[in-house]
Amino acid sequence: MEEISSFAGSVRNVLFIMCDQLRADHLSCYGAGKGALHTPNIDRIASRGARFERAYVTSAVCGPSRTSYYTGRYPLSHRVTWNRVPMPVDELSLGDYLEQAGRSCWLLGKTHFMPDRLSVKERRWTMPEAARALFDEGGFTPIERYDGHFEPEAGSPYRQYLLDKGYESERPWSDFVIGSRLADGSVTSGWYMRNAGLPAQVRAEDSETAYLTDRAMSFIEARGEDPWVLHLSYIKPHWPYKAPAPYHDLFGSEDCRAPVRAQRERTNGHPVHLAYQQQEESLSFAQDDVWRAIRPVYMGLVKQIDDQIGRLLDHLERLGRLDDTLIIFTSDHGDFLGDHWLGEKEYFFEPAIRVPLLIHDPASAHKGPQVFNEFVECIDIVPTILDAVGIVPPEHRIEGVSLLPLMRHGTSAGWRDYAVGSLDYAYREARQILGRDPAACHGMMIREGRYKYMHWQDYRPQLFDLHDDPDELCDLGRDPALERVRSRMRDALIDWNDKRKTRATETYEQVKQRTHAHERLMNILIGRW
Amino acid sequence: MEEISSFAGSVRNVLFIMCDQLRADHLSCYGAGKGALHTPNIDRIASRGARFERAYVTSAVCGPSRTSYYTGRYPLSHRVTWNRVPMPVDELSLGDYLEQAGRSCWLLGKTHFMPDRLSVKERRWTMPEAARALFDEGGFTPIERYDGHFEPEAGSPYRQYLLDKGYESERPWSDFVIGSRLADGSVTSGWYMRNAGLPAQVRAEDSETAYLTDRAMSFIEARGEDPWVLHLSYIKPHWPYKAPAPYHDLFGSEDCRAPVRAQRERTNGHPVHLAYQQQEESLSFAQDDVWRAIRPVYMGLVKQIDDQIGRLLDHLERLGRLDDTLIIFTSDHGDFLGDHWLGEKEYFFEPAIRVPLLIHDPASAHKGPQVFNEFVECIDIVPTILDAVGIVPPEHRIEGVSLLPLMRHGTSAGWRDYAVGSLDYAYREARQILGRDPAACHGMMIREGRYKYMHWQDYRPQLFDLHDDPDELCDLGRDPALERVRSRMRDALIDWNDKRKTRATETYEQVKQRTHAHERLMNILIGRW
Repeated sequence: MEEISSFAGSVRNVLFIMCDQLRADHLSCYGAGKGALHTPNIDRIASRGARFERAYVTSAVCGPSRTSYYTGRYPLSHRVTWNRVPMPVDELSLGDYLEQAGRSCWLLGKTHFMPDRLSVKERRWTMPEAARALFDEGGFTPIERYDGHFEPEAGSPYRQYLLDKGYESERPWSDFVIGSRLADGSVTSGWYMRNAGLPAQVRAEDSETAYLTDRAMSFIEARGEDPWVLHLSYIKPHWPYKAPAPYHDLFGSEDCRAPVRAQRERTNGHPVHLAYQQQEESLSFAQDDVWRAIRPVYMGLVKQIDDQIGRLLDHLERLGRLDDTLIIFTSDHGDFLGDHWLGEKEYFFEPAIRVPLLIHDPASAHKGPQVFNEFVECIDIVPTILDAVGIVPPEHRIEGVSLLPLMRHGTSAGWRDYAVGSLDYAYREARQILGRDPAACHGMMIREGRYKYMHWQDYRPQLFDLHDDPDELCDLGRDPALERVRSRMRDALIDWNDKRKTRATETYEQVKQRTHAHERLMNILIGRW
Repeated sequence: MEEISSFAGSVRNVLFIMCDQLRADHLSCYGAGKGALHTPNIDRIASRGARFERAYVTSAVCGPSRTSYYTGRYPLSHRVTWNRVPMPVDELSLGDYLEQAGRSCWLLGKTHFMPDRLSVKERRWTMPEAARALFDEGGFTPIERYDGHFEPEAGSPYRQYLLDKGYESERPWSDFVIGSRLADGSVTSGWYMRNAGLPAQVRAEDSETAYLTDRAMSFIEARGEDPWVLHLSYIKPHWPYKAPAPYHDLFGSEDCRAPVRAQRERTNGHPVHLAYQQQEESLSFAQDDVWRAIRPVYMGLVKQIDDQIGRLLDHLERLGRLDDTLIIFTSDHGDFLGDHWLGEKEYFFEPAIRVPLLIHDPASAHKGPQVFNEFVECIDIVPTILDAVGIVPPEHRIEGVSLLPLMRHGTSAGWRDYAVGSLDYAYREARQILGRDPAACHGMMIREGRYKYMHWQDYRPQLFDLHDDPDELCDLGRDPALERVRSRMRDALIDWNDKRKTRATETYEQVKQRTHAHERLMNILIGRW
């Protein structure tokens, strides 16, 4: 954190693109190209910059993962361990840090952020309108916040856009964006996965992905030569799995890979994994009909994002912005789509906890494409962005590290040996299936070079050998021969916990200076004979 | 936490007495009676109520320990890991919880609390005067806050009291309360331990301990039949080790126990322990002259506290308040006084991390004296007090448990198996001696039935067998035969971390209800085929 890259300042703008629920292995730069799905536009970012092969989120759930992306801190530190848990009022975000430096973090799309208004009210705090606006949005300055996944409220820009475009309905999102017309003329909801193969009633150019891209392009153009930091946060390919034509049938079930799963995961699985397998979305994806219907649509949604990224990159190029804009492309987590007999995400297997991470950095673009195998984590994004725009990341709070020294100078000495994830499954059916107290549903993951260790509160651990078993189908959590490995992983968990930034209200120096000033002033002489 | 004692409501008042740096083994009810020091008045609390044999603080440092006493949370949760670290603005204290219920926590004496004013300022929060006053004092309502250990500022009540009593000086505390007159007529500071044996120039009845007792007695009498919760927080026997006559020479070096220490701790000690041994106060106490001079004065200061507790109990009895007042007597940590070649506290050995804890509970007084061997921790005080006055402790925040079910009904099913301590030695000479980064000075302790395990960031652990080696002189941290024990203790550390209350901004139900309402309203149907 002490080394601010010597290129800092050459980056004027930051475009921080996030997808929702995008698996790394569905991009061709991550190997999806061996199948039918090609993502040449997203690959352009990789081809001009860095691709991180081992990028992990701190939690495979929107709320905790995004709060890590936005604060630079692990979930156990920022404490938003599930969706819609209000962020504690002492936490600061990327937007707050930028504001302190006289800049802003503009937002288009989803954050899933929930302010802790109740605490503010109970403590009787008031704040000026501008401060309140930032507080309510977790430090972001929304151009348009659009969290997706439900009918936009009356008066919201995307709803108005749909109405203006002629999608006449009380519920234009439900009826057109995720709605499909059945043969009998009725409209069915995209929430019902059996309808996934039907096209959405919305035109592709009016769908969420295109709409957000349009707005981003307009914003960037309107800024002219004024620098900006923009978080463009797509809400796809997150469900409802519903794509507009032609993306709804670009792919068929013959184009998609079958779920990676083994019978022994069902018959001899870990208790927590077994409970997750019993959740509705997992039972659905356990059926071949389901994954065969959904995976092609998921691929179509990814393809649409790729097309829109193409438009966006062309636009940046035309404006000359590729030369002074740091572009980050990532996702908040993946999607099992039936892998390991699971739907959704959350569990620590690679399809959910590993994410794509591509960074185009004008100051290291001359190096050509780079691929890094270092373990990087979503907490690294805040310090990377601050570093890029010349702001010293507050190291007493931020637990991630800037990726720029690595990208620009290959500086990897002392790099972390592992990535760490956590999961609080209190709010899931799995908890009820297991009959657990909501305060006792804690899981941790350590992923190091060879092994992945999963710690489950009150249950035995799981262990996977990613060298011999990259698909994580053989749980070695009870293998007597590997007790030393498991012990080492537990030590790493304790080691990791030591390093978290707990004393965060002030810097070391601030506390020390006040203490020393006080002790000098007061002639305090502890220990003097 | 779910069981609120059926006796709740019979307690009208709470007197929460804390000493500063008082070792458990210097009270006769804890075995000090085998020596010259008798504490019959403090023992009266034990004889009418509960004595906890295994009471531990979460940190043997004022700031972190007191913040645990006041918030009911471990230092890694409340994050005040050292003195003068501002408490994060999202933390709530005993006083805050009482205020929410329309009561107050009155304060006389020390809290060591430091508000995070900088954050409030940076976030541009304002609050009404009453809320600001509570914020500034960590939820306490001061009758008089008096943190001790330095010259009180102009206009402060104790300074004015001293001046009114004729202690004429610009610095009455320095010259009289901790000052002694030398043979040549000059006044010397009590900070210089070589002068410990000389009497303070203040009269015993005007010293800090007596003054705070007087004020407490006045407050209690003035309240009449109005209920109250009072934190009476003495600042002795913390140094400067300086007692007024006659307490300065009630005891001689022949009355005190020699420090518990072994040569092998110096020659073959743990790196962190060795570094602590090199700090000035430890080097001082390594000299026989020093502990022989200090221990008798420390005993005298304890004896004075005992005398003042006697006055206070008599006063309560006269007012009839013993029948409706819960009395808690404890300390924020102990003092090594040369044990283990250490001065001060901080390290995890018993003289520092174990504390006295006595509770007189009117609703269980009929049971006569009770002695408990359960592990209790200072985080149990907040829920105990709330329980006593009929307030349900907020279980999504508070990590301790009420002691009342144990005292009133013997309910100990599922009681914790261990006590946990932590230490952040960033601000100590030991860090500099070891050449460590201030962000990497983390230690943890687990004390269970037989063993005490000390985890030190980046160093080998320490292990002590308290059955065979109650004085903790034989470090088994490297004994190959005990690897299984150490492994079990590491597992307990992870297990403990799982149980901390991380998701604390709202209750489980609050988040769940909002989420369900949202999902119902929005027809969100994840996983449906």
